[in-house]
Amino acid sequence: MSRVEAAHGAGGRAMGRLIDELFRQAFDNPLLNAGDDFAAFEVPAGRMVMSTDAHVITPLTFPGGDIGALSVHGTVNDVAMSGARPLYLSAAFILEEGFSLEALRVIVESMARAAREAGVSIVTGDTKVVPRGKGDGVYITTTGVGVLGEGINISGSRARAGDRILISGPIAEHGVAVLAAREGLALGGELRSDSAALNGLVEVMLAGLDNPDRLHCLRDPTRGGVAAALNEMAAQSGVGMRIDEALVPLRTEVAAACELLGLEPLQVANEGRLIAICEPESADGLLAAMRAHPLGEQAAIIGEVVGDDPGRVALRTRLGAERWLEPPHGEPLPRIC
Amino acid sequence: MSRVEAAHGAGGRAMGRLIDELFRQAFDNPLLNAGDDFAAFEVPAGRMVMSTDAHVITPLTFPGGDIGALSVHGTVNDVAMSGARPLYLSAAFILEEGFSLEALRVIVESMARAAREAGVSIVTGDTKVVPRGKGDGVYITTTGVGVLGEGINISGSRARAGDRILISGPIAEHGVAVLAAREGLALGGELRSDSAALNGLVEVMLAGLDNPDRLHCLRDPTRGGVAAALNEMAAQSGVGMRIDEALVPLRTEVAAACELLGLEPLQVANEGRLIAICEPESADGLLAAMRAHPLGEQAAIIGEVVGDDPGRVALRTRLGAERWLEPPHGEPLPRIC
Repeated sequence: MSRVEAAHGAGGRAMGRLIDELFRQAFDNPLLNAGDDFAAFEVPAGRMVMSTDAHVITPLTFPGGDIGALSVHGTVNDVAMSGARPLYLSAAFILEEGFSLEALRVIVESMARAAREAGVSIVTGDTKVVPRGKGDGVYITTTGVGVLGEGINISGSRARAGDRILISGPIAEHGVAVLAAREGLALGGELRSDSAALNGLVEVMLAGLDNPDRLHCLRDPTRGGVAAALNEMAAQSGVGMRIDEALVPLRTEVAAACELLGLEPLQVANEGRLIAICEPESADGLLAAMRAHPLGEQAAIIGEVVGDDPGRVALRTRLGAERWLEPPHGEPLPRIC
Repeated sequence: MSRVEAAHGAGGRAMGRLIDELFRQAFDNPLLNAGDDFAAFEVPAGRMVMSTDAHVITPLTFPGGDIGALSVHGTVNDVAMSGARPLYLSAAFILEEGFSLEALRVIVESMARAAREAGVSIVTGDTKVVPRGKGDGVYITTTGVGVLGEGINISGSRARAGDRILISGPIAEHGVAVLAAREGLALGGELRSDSAALNGLVEVMLAGLDNPDRLHCLRDPTRGGVAAALNEMAAQSGVGMRIDEALVPLRTEVAAACELLGLEPLQVANEGRLIAICEPESADGLLAAMRAHPLGEQAAIIGEVVGDDPGRVALRTRLGAERWLEPPHGEPLPRIC
């Protein structure tokens, strides 16, 4: 079976063939096919958004996805969390010498499929090869750009006391599925990553509001989970938050797996969920809009923003106790994305 | 001495501190400081350009630069080779566990300096940590966006028979300097990478033309050197090219080092040089504009585009013989950028 060689990253003929026969065929679009080291495209006057993510997940394939689809979802979602419409992605590959070219093809085709489904094009890229023992099969860094509509003003710094906190679906599914795949654990029940592009969901959420300015914050709770995302936004906004654990959607199998693994589900990574914070008057409408979308069917209001305890998140547990919800210090789950 | 730990890539407090105390301090700008997972900025209506590069160079520091400055120059140059004005960069770091945080600080500060000098801002980023033996200190993927002025229409596909081929300065300096540093070779004379941001040079080149459309192609001859860049453009444009080796600037020390190492200078990577292809009537003016800029003082016209032998590059050697100038098949110099 053919494998990645140093020559595939050296700028010569071997690299040219890899680009022509693999990347251009899979990503096929006029901007990429132009064959320059850049992509040029028309944009309207206004605000653009840019975001980047390096993907180093292990294993490369897991129930519900692989590094290819994930590398598209991760960056599409980071762009979408601004309220922008993602348009174009770049993709930079760091390949380990000896990696199977057939496995790379499967990953690249998965990226291409994820991009088509999300309505974005992969328009420019780069390929580097590192020796065995200096990488781990493939790392993929994607960067996305998108256009931001007028009147949208979403930032982790805009949470205000009284705002409602919503989540788009059940939590911790990505982290638990990846960990089970990595460790070869049979944890019972179906554990499957939630990895998905959220730009379509964000679009219907914004369309459902009488004024997009009522949606204050969006964040996808990836590494560090819901706990990290909420604490970050509480700190950015200088507000407190109160979350009711009983309201946070969590599938039984996932809860059981977390208990077995000693993980706090609120600290476990998601790749197809978002947290939204909006004015109280808009919360019910936003919830209805989310629930009408396939990726938000189990959306829920899970808490509210308060003026007390700025920078901290209080959790009312299922047992009725109150405790601080802390972000993880370190790595409950390394290399999860 | 403090070292990179898995926790620095896990999305929790350790990562937050690394971002606050290292990246935000060094890159300091309002877009990055907003603290969201994206950067939003205003753009005028028109064409934008996007390009990306993963940097896996070894050693991390070499005479004339380091991976930090290189990661800015590489992407600024790819954007500038469209004729666009680079504005914003993203930066994604893949750190190996155990890497010195002090070494990382030096690299990040070098990036920040290179960005300031090139007039671009690093506005969004990502940090991942991989275990020992799955990386090599630090890999940096940068992506750049820029705005393309009206009437500029530069692509490797626009070379036409009769066009003149120019180069901005002496070749092979980056590759030879990095190889000497990697292997600990004392090759005599000063070997120093040419790593530099070329957007300022491109700006004066375009400003000097009565019509920017007369400049047909720009390319920075990085991996695979001048040979790869010319062959790529000859293939893209469906034209032949004739290069006169005696006209290609090459410092004596670099020529001697290449001979010693068995390298063809035309196949060795540059990181601060560009090839320009323009209409014959504009060549002298373009050359004069290049020579008036510090990064183009030794610019030269090195050949011309022809209708014969489409997709091939003919070299008239210093000895007067004619041969095909081939791109390297593989890696005369792996991990050169």
